[in-house]
Amino acid sequence: MTTEPQSPQVPSVSALTLPRTLTRQLNQHDGQRVRLLGFVHARRDLGGVQFLVLRDVSGITQCVGSGLHLPLPESSVEVVGRVKAHPKAPGGYEVQVEEFRVISAAVEAPPLEIPKMEWNVNPETMLDYRYVSVRGLRERAALKVQGEIVYAFHTYLREQGFTEISTPKIVSAGAEGGANLFKLDYFGEQAYLAQSPQLYKQIMVGVFERVYEVAPVYRAEEHATSRHLNEYLSLDVEMGFIHDEEDVMTLQNGLLTAIMQRLKDTCAAEFELLGATLPDVPAHIPRIPLLEARQLVTEKFGHVVGGKDLDPEAERLLSQHFAETQGSDFVFVTKYPRAARPFYAHPELETDGTPRTDLTRGYDLLFRGIEITSGGQRIHDYAMLMDSIRAYKMNPEAMTGYSEVFKHGMPPHGGFAIGAERLTAKLLGIANVRYARAFPRDRHRLTP
Amino acid sequence: MTTEPQSPQVPSVSALTLPRTLTRQLNQHDGQRVRLLGFVHARRDLGGVQFLVLRDVSGITQCVGSGLHLPLPESSVEVVGRVKAHPKAPGGYEVQVEEFRVISAAVEAPPLEIPKMEWNVNPETMLDYRYVSVRGLRERAALKVQGEIVYAFHTYLREQGFTEISTPKIVSAGAEGGANLFKLDYFGEQAYLAQSPQLYKQIMVGVFERVYEVAPVYRAEEHATSRHLNEYLSLDVEMGFIHDEEDVMTLQNGLLTAIMQRLKDTCAAEFELLGATLPDVPAHIPRIPLLEARQLVTEKFGHVVGGKDLDPEAERLLSQHFAETQGSDFVFVTKYPRAARPFYAHPELETDGTPRTDLTRGYDLLFRGIEITSGGQRIHDYAMLMDSIRAYKMNPEAMTGYSEVFKHGMPPHGGFAIGAERLTAKLLGIANVRYARAFPRDRHRLTP
Repeated sequence: MTTEPQSPQVPSVSALTLPRTLTRQLNQHDGQRVRLLGFVHARRDLGGVQFLVLRDVSGITQCVGSGLHLPLPESSVEVVGRVKAHPKAPGGYEVQVEEFRVISAAVEAPPLEIPKMEWNVNPETMLDYRYVSVRGLRERAALKVQGEIVYAFHTYLREQGFTEISTPKIVSAGAEGGANLFKLDYFGEQAYLAQSPQLYKQIMVGVFERVYEVAPVYRAEEHATSRHLNEYLSLDVEMGFIHDEEDVMTLQNGLLTAIMQRLKDTCAAEFELLGATLPDVPAHIPRIPLLEARQLVTEKFGHVVGGKDLDPEAERLLSQHFAETQGSDFVFVTKYPRAARPFYAHPELETDGTPRTDLTRGYDLLFRGIEITSGGQRIHDYAMLMDSIRAYKMNPEAMTGYSEVFKHGMPPHGGFAIGAERLTAKLLGIANVRYARAFPRDRHRLTP
Repeated sequence: MTTEPQSPQVPSVSALTLPRTLTRQLNQHDGQRVRLLGFVHARRDLGGVQFLVLRDVSGITQCVGSGLHLPLPESSVEVVGRVKAHPKAPGGYEVQVEEFRVISAAVEAPPLEIPKMEWNVNPETMLDYRYVSVRGLRERAALKVQGEIVYAFHTYLREQGFTEISTPKIVSAGAEGGANLFKLDYFGEQAYLAQSPQLYKQIMVGVFERVYEVAPVYRAEEHATSRHLNEYLSLDVEMGFIHDEEDVMTLQNGLLTAIMQRLKDTCAAEFELLGATLPDVPAHIPRIPLLEARQLVTEKFGHVVGGKDLDPEAERLLSQHFAETQGSDFVFVTKYPRAARPFYAHPELETDGTPRTDLTRGYDLLFRGIEITSGGQRIHDYAMLMDSIRAYKMNPEAMTGYSEVFKHGMPPHGGFAIGAERLTAKLLGIANVRYARAFPRDRHRLTP
C-alpha cells in the first residue's frame, strides 16, 4: 500500500460541476454520479481492487476502485463515482470510484484505530489522544446528540417566551457558599470561577421575567467520579410570576418532551449506533415528596437511606420503582428538606401561609436512576431572604450585590439547571460523563 | 402616596379565569378585559385618580384607576382592567383598572430612577447598580437585541449544516501565544482562561467539518477602552473543505443577512427606542485588500497609517468611503500582512502555489467604522504549521496537543469570531461596549 503526495490545491474538474453529496444522502442518488468529501476512515488494498471507507459528517460509506493509491487513514479526500445499491455496505449503497483526489494527506497513522468501535486501551490514553479519538463514530455521536439537546433547549424556551442571557463566569463570591471554587487572580483581586449562574439568572428575572443561559460552570471537586466534571455545560432556566414550583416542573416536563422529540428527529442513527433507546416523556412526569420516596425505598426494597437526601442506590431503586409501576424513566422528587438545599430555596408553606422550617419547594429530577436536575422555587421576599442568609451563617455583607435586588419587588420565581453532559451520558448509556464532553477537565487533566 | 403590604400569595379570582396579556398585545384587545403582570415602572397619584405605568417583558403600558394604593416603584403587580384606545398613552392604549394586586412589594425605592431614559450619573455608579439599572428600557434593549443576534447565529448556522460544540475555557496555554491571559490555579497546576476557542474549533473541524460555539472568552487587558471587555461572548465559527477564505466571507455575508433580518422581525421596538437604524447587508459585501485600503485612506483622506494594520481612524475613514461610494455599512479588509496575524493564519499563495511570506488569507470585517470580526483561512498542512510555529518563536513542545492533529489529514479550513457585545453596541449606537453586557467585567469591576 502506498501513499501519494498531496495534490495541488485546485478543485478537480468534477468539483466545478458536481455539487457535494453527503454519505447519508446516497439513497437518493442510486445509479447517479456523485461527489463525496471526507476522511479515510478505513482502507483495504486487495491488489487489483481497493476499498476505502469514507467518513463525512453524516456517516460512512464504502468506495471501491482500482489503481487507487490510498493515503494513510484520516487523510481528507475527494471521491467522484457512481452510486450502486449494495446490501452489505454500510447504509446499503457503495460508490464505484471514477475520480479520486487526496485533499490533505495524513503524515502519520493515527495513534488509535479510529474505525474501532471499542478501544481496548486505558481510558486515560484515549483521553490523551482526544484531539483525534473524538473523530471516532461512537465518540462523536455523543457530542452530536449533545448539540441537538442544546439546540432543542434554545428553540423550546424561545417558544415559551424566554430570553437568552450571558452572565459572568468570573465572580467575587460563590453562589453556593464558597466550597469547591477555582481561585483566580483578577488584576490583583481574589476572584473565582462561577459554580452556577444562579444569582445572576435570578436578577435577570427582574428584567426579562423568563431567562435561560447555556454556558460552562466550574466545580473544583478533588474527587474523581464517573458522574462529575470540573468544567461542564450548564443549561440554566429561571422564570418569574410563578405560583409555585409546580409551574417550573410543568415547564421542564414540556422541555424534556421537546428535547426527546428533536433527538428522535435528528439522532436516530446515533442512538442506533450506541444501542441506546430514547425515553418516552410522560405528559405528566410522576412526582413524589422526598420523605415518601425514602420510605418507599426502605419498605419496598429494604434499603435504608442515610442523611437527609437520597443516596445513589436510593436514586436507582426509586427510578426502578417508577419504571416498573408507571412506565416512566423520569420522576420528580419534591419538597426537599431545608438541610439538603441552599439558602435561596423557597420554604414550603403551611396551609395558612406560614413558612415551614423543615421543607423547601426544591425538587430533583431523576432519570434512569440518576439525578439530572436540581430545581425549585426561590425566595423572592427580601426579609425572608435575609433571614435565610443569616440562618445559613453566610456573610450578609458579601451577599449585598445579590440580596439588594430583592429590595426591588422581585416576583415569585423558580428555575432549574440541567448538566448537559450528564443528561447526554445517561441518555446514551455512556458510563463515564467525561466521554460526553469534547475535551473534559478533571482532577489530573488539563490537556488536550 | 401610600404603599400597602404584600398580599398573600394566592391568585386573584380573575387570575383563574383570565389568561395573561402582554402589554404589546393590547392592540388586539381593544375594549376587552385583560390581566397584566409586571413591575411598577412609574406612578403618579392625582388624589382622585392614580396613574401606574406597568412594565413587562414586552414594553410598558399606562393603567388608570381610583382608590389605588400604589406601592413603591419596581414592585411587581397584577392588574385586571379594560383596554381603551388612548392616542397619548405609550403604545396607543391604556388600561382602566378594575382589580389591582401587589404581588411583591419593593421595600425601598430604587437607587436610580428606572423610567429615566438617560441617567445623569457617573457611568461607574450606574454599573455599580447594574443589578437593578439593567431593568431600564434602554439598558435591557441592548441585551434583548444581543439575545436575538445569538439566536439568529444558531439558527442560520444550523441551516448551513454546522454542529454546536462546547470547548474548555480552562486551558494549559493561550491560543494567541501567551499575552493577556488570566492565570488560574488548577489543582496545583498553572492554568489559564481561554482567550479564544481557536485551536479547539479547528480540531473539531476534523470531527464535524463545520462547527460553531457561543461561549465567553477572556482577555486580561489592563487598559480600559470603550471597545474592550475582559470577559465577552464570542460567536465562533470554523468550517472545513473550503477552497480559500472567500468561502468563509461568503458564509459570514449570509449569516449577517440572517441576523439583520431577525432583528428586523423581532427588535423593531428596541431599535426605535434607541434611535438606531438597522443596516442593509449587501448581497456581496465589498472587499478590499489591506494594502489598497491603506493607500486609499492616505490618498483620499490624507491620513497616513502607521504600523502594518489599520488604526482606528483608518477604520473609520475606510468605512466612510464604502458607505459613501457603495452604500455599504460593511467592508471586508482582506489579505492581511503576516506581521499582523497569528501563527495559524494561512499564507496567501503565489499563482504557482508557493506560499507568500508577506501576506496571509486573513481578513477583518469593518462595520460602521470599527472591526467586528477577524477571520480567515488557517494553515492545515502539518509541515507548514510547524514552520510557522518556529517562525513565530513559539515553543513547538508546548503546542503539541494542538499541532498533533494536523498530522491527521486536516482539510483546508477557515473561520471567524464575532464579539457579540461589540456588534450589539455598534448596531445600537452604544458608545461603550460595557453597556452591551449584563454584568461587565473590566479592570476595576468584579461586581455585581
